[in-house]
Amino acid sequence: MKKIRVGIFGFGKTGKVIANEFLNDSQFALTWVVRKGYADHHKYASRLLGYEFDAGKIFSIEDVDNDFFRERPVDALVDFSDSSGVYLYKKAAEAGISIVSAISKYEQEEIDLIKSLAKYNRVLYSPNITLGINVLMVAAQILQKIAPHADIEIVEEHFKGKREVSGTAKRIANLLGLNEEEHLNSIRVGGIVGRHEIIFGMPNQTIRLQHESINRAAFGQGAIFAVKCLIGQPPGLYTMETIIAEMFRQNIPVY
Amino acid sequence: MKKIRVGIFGFGKTGKVIANEFLNDSQFALTWVVRKGYADHHKYASRLLGYEFDAGKIFSIEDVDNDFFRERPVDALVDFSDSSGVYLYKKAAEAGISIVSAISKYEQEEIDLIKSLAKYNRVLYSPNITLGINVLMVAAQILQKIAPHADIEIVEEHFKGKREVSGTAKRIANLLGLNEEEHLNSIRVGGIVGRHEIIFGMPNQTIRLQHESINRAAFGQGAIFAVKCLIGQPPGLYTMETIIAEMFRQNIPVY
Amino acid sequence: MKKIRVGIFGFGKTGKVIANEFLNDSQFALTWVVRKGYADHHKYASRLLGYEFDAGKIFSIEDVDNDFFRERPVDALVDFSDSSGVYLYKKAAEAGISIVSAISKYEQEEIDLIKSLAKYNRVLYSPNITLGINVLMVAAQILQKIAPHADIEIVEEHFKGKREVSGTAKRIANLLGLNEEEHLNSIRVGGIVGRHEIIFGMPNQTIRLQHESINRAAFGQGAIFAVKCLIGQPPGLYTMETIIAEMFRQNIPVY
Amino acid sequence: MKKIRVGIFGFGKTGKVIANEFLNDSQFALTWVVRKGYADHHKYASRLLGYEFDAGKIFSIEDVDNDFFRERPVDALVDFSDSSGVYLYKKAAEAGISIVSAISKYEQEEIDLIKSLAKYNRVLYSPNITLGINVLMVAAQILQKIAPHADIEIVEEHFKGKREVSGTAKRIANLLGLNEEEHLNSIRVGGIVGRHEIIFGMPNQTIRLQHESINRAAFGQGAIFAVKCLIGQPPGLYTMETIIAEMFRQNIPVY
Repeated sequence: MKKIRVGIFGFGKTGKVIANEFLNDSQFALTWVVRKGYADHHKYASRLLGYEFDAGKIFSIEDVDNDFFRERPVDALVDFSDSSGVYLYKKAAEAGISIVSAISKYEQEEIDLIKSLAKYNRVLYSPNITLGINVLMVAAQILQKIAPHADIEIVEEHFKGKREVSGTAKRIANLLGLNEEEHLNSIRVGGIVGRHEIIFGMPNQTIRLQHESINRAAFGQGAIFAVKCLIGQPPGLYTMETIIAEMFRQNIPVY
Repeated sequence: MKKIRVGIFGFGKTGKVIANEFLNDSQFALTWVVRKGYADHHKYASRLLGYEFDAGKIFSIEDVDNDFFRERPVDALVDFSDSSGVYLYKKAAEAGISIVSAISKYEQEEIDLIKSLAKYNRVLYSPNITLGINVLMVAAQILQKIAPHADIEIVEEHFKGKREVSGTAKRIANLLGLNEEEHLNSIRVGGIVGRHEIIFGMPNQTIRLQHESINRAAFGQGAIFAVKCLIGQPPGLYTMETIIAEMFRQNIPVY
Repeated sequence: MKKIRVGIFGFGKTGKVIANEFLNDSQFALTWVVRKGYADHHKYASRLLGYEFDAGKIFSIEDVDNDFFRERPVDALVDFSDSSGVYLYKKAAEAGISIVSAISKYEQEEIDLIKSLAKYNRVLYSPNITLGINVLMVAAQILQKIAPHADIEIVEEHFKGKREVSGTAKRIANLLGLNEEEHLNSIRVGGIVGRHEIIFGMPNQTIRLQHESINRAAFGQGAIFAVKCLIGQPPGLYTMETIIAEMFRQNIPVY
Repeated sequence: MKKIRVGIFGFGKTGKVIANEFLNDSQFALTWVVRKGYADHHKYASRLLGYEFDAGKIFSIEDVDNDFFRERPVDALVDFSDSSGVYLYKKAAEAGISIVSAISKYEQEEIDLIKSLAKYNRVLYSPNITLGINVLMVAAQILQKIAPHADIEIVEEHFKGKREVSGTAKRIANLLGLNEEEHLNSIRVGGIVGRHEIIFGMPNQTIRLQHESINRAAFGQGAIFAVKCLIGQPPGLYTMETIIAEMFRQNIPVY
């Protein structure tokens, strides 16, 4: 079987983990990595991560000229860098490359740019690309409809150093129409990687949907899942939520 | 608005709780209660449960002759007695009464009888009629399809005196194709009313679906939910699982 | 063995549960119940709670004159009424009766009164008399000393209708020197009876101490435990916390 | 302040994490590391782990002759290798070095050897050296004494690949006198690092003591804690359990 060729934007702490997940998966070929600056320029990400083969040649963002994507073709571009990467998407899209962006925050102008590309290319944008979190989001919305009288609270737990409220938790609150101030509880202790819990309280029963992250590789697995889902799809703007929602629809049990 | 008239089979510990839930809900009128023996014969369930009005006149199962259901018409019959009640369903069905059975175990012959009635009447049969448990069952089946490589374990916790493994947990194991011996864990301690947890373990993340029962009134609320769902439906055999699965389908979020 | 004679102040929702626990325990004889007003005056609490014997004759608080406690001697007075009961403690104390108060809130003046009685009599005062909650409180204080760098958060979950923050959670925060605004999280959903969790987060591990109330009978069991603990003790002011702390000391494992 | 000098046995997956924790802690100086074979011989563990200074020179176990410990003096030897390391303890003990062994399993003969050294030196042996697990063990034993009628169950959760039952969970069962077959439940799913829960079920309340490992660095922190505890102590055989039990005793809250 032909391998799926992937290029990655970003080679920081998370970017390395993402690269590692693609390197580990025999269905994929990591073709290149684009990063800021010239550190490890033209070395192979594979070698830096301890593999005994060459893959994921490292380029600087300065190297990405008009021919970059045509000369180094991939099936999908996976972006774990920062919001500035968005301005290179056009060149990639024009070269027919599917785009998977896991950037946590964009300005409106950047989102508009993404939407414009989605008219003629497959673009997936999800600030939280983890499979499990999106399952939680979709299940919670359905459950709220089934049990409209249930009281709902969100609890998110993260390591002490995380200052801001979890964006994922805010997204969940938003989807469920819950006031963040009142119904979102943030716990900051020790080294907890990440835990989200949605509590549905009814007079005689309680339902809890819980997601725990064990490590950042979950993001890489989410990206792998996203790239695979885009294959064979028509152009358009995708999110993990829409994909998972569609998978819910297709997998409703039949008795 | 016209009230929904209900008759109940069973007035034991659970039956009383069920009657109480219907008495408490202004959308319903509890017309009668049928129980074994002649205890509190012709008294009102409402009075025995502390209400200041007459509702739910108590009859013996011996009173249920060919005219019983026609003379005391209800919209739905709710059965929390035992498997022997099934033999009176035919008379009720012929009087056009919807049937909701929450009996935990039937013989094959009894199930066949229920199926035969479902040809011309609405019959809902669910050994676990709690809303939340059925939400768990449906969500777990979908999740298994979305994350087919996840390892799944079921943990059920109940009070020390409960001898057998939870029928609900066995049903979940069965729906997910899990070997009960290997993947179903039973905790028996103190006075825990009932807790079911389904753990989906992936390499980098864990999802937990959890349901806790606070008290038996959850069964009554499930019955209320079931009776309402049957209104306006065509004849057929329903279960809470099929109803909840259908509600999942109708409530997939649209973005 | 001679039974321990008990009198109860209070016959409301909680008071009835307390009475029931004492009636159920063969080590105790429920001698009388004192309540406000004249409802069920001179009836037996035992009969009202469904027992087939006479125990716990019901008196009005107006009946408690100077001779009441001498004429109806008990070993312990258990108070689940309200703060006004405290003004009858002196008469009881002078009759040599041990006092167990589970009143949730006293004014300073009332606390002073309790302290004055403790000089010559056994008086136990605990706003939360549940065994498990006090175990949590003591264990949390020790754990904080053993792991002084751990981050600590408290989560308390209760039914939607409970307006104020859990007094128990506030007490825990206070014992641990935690700012309530910052480290105490209150979840209000559905019908949760009561759950307290203390989370100790360290960089590489997390410890959780969790207590769940199943029903109010836990208060009755706490009172039974308290009355037994006071037997044979010298006069003084006791709390469940001091008793449990002492039990911790006596039960440190020896290897 | 003078740094505490430490030598480590073992430089496998766990050994490296342990070395890293000591290198990260300014109170300690990592003097040497002894490992099997000659890989990275005479290199510095610090450099291999990414530090910019020389510490933890690597030796082969073959290098440990009669003069090794006198020529490279340390305050404590920390052993995360395997049971064979025990045969070098005598030489270390004779050089006045405190010994901390975290080996998971010893033969009786090896335990006897350790005991003989404890007559004239400080020796700490704990198969599970994590602070939190030992806190759980001690707290559980006390709680069992305080609530002797509580039903107790142990649940341990680990990654799918872990074949055997958790040794820690077996130790807890043993300390509490619980039959492993009946009361110890093992969950094996995905990538869970390690979670132990002890459930105390009483008729009206449930207490849960829970410990979650986030990563292996918890072992290193346990070793750091152990080395510090041994300073200034008389010769003898110590375990983390005895140390934590003693810390419980010294930190019982006083009101």
